[in-house]
Amino acid sequence: MKSALNRSVTRRDFLYRAAAVGGTGFLLNAMNAWGMGIASTMSGPPVLSGSGKGKSVVILGAGLAGMTAAYELNKLGYKVQVLEARGFAGGRCQTARKGFELTELGGETQRCAFDAGQYINHGPWRIPLHHQSTLHYTRTFEVPLEVMVNDNDHAFVYLENGGPLAKQRLRPAQIKADMRGHVAELLAKSVQDHLLDRQLTDDDQRALLDYLKHEGQLEAGDLRYKGRTGRGFAVNPGAGMNPGPGTPSDPLGFHDLLASGVGKVYSAVQDYPMQNTMFQPVGGMDQIAKAFEKRVGRHIRYHAEVRTIRHGDNNVTVAWKDTQTGKESTVTADYCLCTLPLSTLRMVDTDFSDGFKNAIKAVAYAPVGKIGLQMKRRFWEEDDHIYGGHVLTDIKGINTISLPSTSWQKKKGVLLGYYNYQTDAIAVSALSPAERAEFALAAGEKIFPAYRDAFDSAFSVAWHRVQYNLGGWAEWNDDSRKNAYPLLLEGEKRVLLAGEHLSYLTGWQAGAIESAWQQLARIHERAMA
Amino acid sequence: MKSALNRSVTRRDFLYRAAAVGGTGFLLNAMNAWGMGIASTMSGPPVLSGSGKGKSVVILGAGLAGMTAAYELNKLGYKVQVLEARGFAGGRCQTARKGFELTELGGETQRCAFDAGQYINHGPWRIPLHHQSTLHYTRTFEVPLEVMVNDNDHAFVYLENGGPLAKQRLRPAQIKADMRGHVAELLAKSVQDHLLDRQLTDDDQRALLDYLKHEGQLEAGDLRYKGRTGRGFAVNPGAGMNPGPGTPSDPLGFHDLLASGVGKVYSAVQDYPMQNTMFQPVGGMDQIAKAFEKRVGRHIRYHAEVRTIRHGDNNVTVAWKDTQTGKESTVTADYCLCTLPLSTLRMVDTDFSDGFKNAIKAVAYAPVGKIGLQMKRRFWEEDDHIYGGHVLTDIKGINTISLPSTSWQKKKGVLLGYYNYQTDAIAVSALSPAERAEFALAAGEKIFPAYRDAFDSAFSVAWHRVQYNLGGWAEWNDDSRKNAYPLLLEGEKRVLLAGEHLSYLTGWQAGAIESAWQQLARIHERAMA
Repeated sequence: MKSALNRSVTRRDFLYRAAAVGGTGFLLNAMNAWGMGIASTMSGPPVLSGSGKGKSVVILGAGLAGMTAAYELNKLGYKVQVLEARGFAGGRCQTARKGFELTELGGETQRCAFDAGQYINHGPWRIPLHHQSTLHYTRTFEVPLEVMVNDNDHAFVYLENGGPLAKQRLRPAQIKADMRGHVAELLAKSVQDHLLDRQLTDDDQRALLDYLKHEGQLEAGDLRYKGRTGRGFAVNPGAGMNPGPGTPSDPLGFHDLLASGVGKVYSAVQDYPMQNTMFQPVGGMDQIAKAFEKRVGRHIRYHAEVRTIRHGDNNVTVAWKDTQTGKESTVTADYCLCTLPLSTLRMVDTDFSDGFKNAIKAVAYAPVGKIGLQMKRRFWEEDDHIYGGHVLTDIKGINTISLPSTSWQKKKGVLLGYYNYQTDAIAVSALSPAERAEFALAAGEKIFPAYRDAFDSAFSVAWHRVQYNLGGWAEWNDDSRKNAYPLLLEGEKRVLLAGEHLSYLTGWQAGAIESAWQQLARIHERAMA
Repeated sequence: MKSALNRSVTRRDFLYRAAAVGGTGFLLNAMNAWGMGIASTMSGPPVLSGSGKGKSVVILGAGLAGMTAAYELNKLGYKVQVLEARGFAGGRCQTARKGFELTELGGETQRCAFDAGQYINHGPWRIPLHHQSTLHYTRTFEVPLEVMVNDNDHAFVYLENGGPLAKQRLRPAQIKADMRGHVAELLAKSVQDHLLDRQLTDDDQRALLDYLKHEGQLEAGDLRYKGRTGRGFAVNPGAGMNPGPGTPSDPLGFHDLLASGVGKVYSAVQDYPMQNTMFQPVGGMDQIAKAFEKRVGRHIRYHAEVRTIRHGDNNVTVAWKDTQTGKESTVTADYCLCTLPLSTLRMVDTDFSDGFKNAIKAVAYAPVGKIGLQMKRRFWEEDDHIYGGHVLTDIKGINTISLPSTSWQKKKGVLLGYYNYQTDAIAVSALSPAERAEFALAAGEKIFPAYRDAFDSAFSVAWHRVQYNLGGWAEWNDDSRKNAYPLLLEGEKRVLLAGEHLSYLTGWQAGAIESAWQQLARIHERAMA
């Protein structure tokens, strides 16, 4: 099982596997499965006894990890103080809507100009059904959820390098029906021709044939795949005589499908974190951040940039600067829970041991870019009957155009114009905001004729250029997981670390929350000892 | 293509195909695809010129067909009068919530006792993305939609007669991953062993092997299927060191899968009407009826039971009885559009020709039963992480337990406890409401341990016993489609018929709407002539 395991859960290998698709290194499946760590394992905060009364914890960062810790530790009686460099809480759990401002490092300031009610979740945007930790808080805090359509057999796949099927707007329903139909036919004929007599008993062969007829909807007589209703119709059925019953449209040819590589864009089942049911908070992902903030906001010091950490055997002292006034202050507490991304923590002046400092530097952070495009008209719904889901493409730097799963049938909508990563993200992020929008439009109009005309305004982010984040998420490799990760998990003296980076759910909010649960339990255990 | 066509679109054949699953005639797929007519073809009402001013149309029935006609004809200037036997509009487009009353023929009165905010759509419950006609009105009338989770790889399949996999709560994700994995392995080895050299070129074999490795996530070396993340984990990944990266759980054996027949519960792609994205109106399906009613209610005469239809060359006279006062009245109009189900129309005293009367009698109506069960606790979400979708089972008379796609994470919820059909529906409908609830509980607790304890109250319907409907939908067969259907579509003199029964979208609201569009256009054409 070991090799299947590694293949399944390291992002690097996953990307490698995805890069094989289409033969030209595009990352459709990787895009679809970012934050490769999969399912959460804890379904509620740790059940702890004893009181933290009289003990204090300084928490660095008011992202989901920091606020989770503040919320739970406060309930246990601890005095908590959260230092947050930004003027708002949530960390990467952000939503860009009218008035939201972002100035990337070395970049011009963007001020989101979407209409009221329109927004883009430019950080995390999905909550899978098995992320019970995130769902614990949406339930507890009564954050209303709605379904995020993460799987839509009607959203196009569009390959520039798709061989005989290049530059066509293909529907996944067609591809899945036809690939699996042709494959079923091939195997059914092998059974019929007794090519599998050595491998399978007569009973199993009969059952297999039965299954294949169903799976591929093969003709009863000649076992041929000739199309099926699931792929769509040449003429749709409707009322009256004409149109009468619909005829399934003609299947794509087996050779063309194989030569295009398009069958490999999809797979037998979605990878675990991508399966239905997928959720998003009604009104934007930051509703989760706001729900936390409502409960722990009084413990958060905003505009407080951490400058130094000094830790002893009995307490921890953190110096911070008020970014509005420039004034420096310190806070001393019994414990420190540091949830700063390692990309940021490595720039803080600390008296950690060299081993610990090196461990902090050992992990890379993912360059990631996203752009939200407000469209005057929901042409994908109106013209193409695509309601949510992802248009997958090998257009370099685009990877996916994702359609909004909210405000169905309304006039306007904000779609995700690209979701890029690594070298692609670095290249695109070098463009100005206006150039990024132009880049997205030039690609999108290849797929949707109405794209450019409908365009209203854009808001983009390059997470590797965002101060206090400097990347989308921690990217462990086998080496750093083995050597640096355990050291960081352990912490040093009275400083413990938490965040998505200290989980196998990197890039997911569940990773941040579960890591916080784990580390706050350790603080409490030590405080009670 | 002819045979594929017939196989695809007649419900009888479809049921036959589904009945083969499991070898014991259960109808999982049929349940999943009721209302077999598939995709609508008209995306908006007919564009008509000229005015109907001074002309009158009496419309029988204020279901979606009748109200569509009333709305559009009224816009054209016609004087419309709608006769509706019930005290409310909508026809089968109903939602049972607190206080909703139903007295089936010969049955006791049920008064829905769900909590405020809880409901069941006991008539139509799904709007597929390609039913552009239904979606035309939800958009025009601004009826808010939400996603109805119609496809959930985490909702169980539970087979009493599932051979080696009987009486287990299987997740579709496991079944799909494993069946397709094993099949991919088998075919990959056939390629490797040169068994397919005659059928495929070298290039195609290479591409096929590549595809199969991806589709089945086969081991690179021995091409074996050993599980995959998509099937779930033995131990889920999470924060910290322990649990570390998850191990995919062990696959179900190929022989067991084949012998159980469970692979045939699912198929390469969902049939067309069942594909994502599926919608439901926020707050209940009857929001569509109410939106129509708001616009045409002033033209509706409620409690008006149609008694006789007399039609001449110049006008139509309909006699109706006020069911509250017993008073009989008549209305005469230039045209009559009759949207009564044929099951009901056949009992009305008319002076139609014998040929037309016989055609009206030629179609059967489907016995259909549903039960809504309010549960005190959403145990399917809390205990099993199933958010919406259908638990499919071969338990006789149950077929599906469908979980609600609304009020996520709230305390209570109403699930669909069975959805039965034909002889099963007839058998279950013979029970009293309390007995039906007991029947549903006895089945449900086999699958969900918390089922009976969580039960609060029930509301059931047997559509074949509901006055003015007498069945779920029209069930054409090849013979009646060929002989009776064209006659009915044509109408007689100044009486035209409309409804889901005059479409190839039987059982769907889109069928009713599109049929109304078609027939109102014919009325207008004749009025303008």
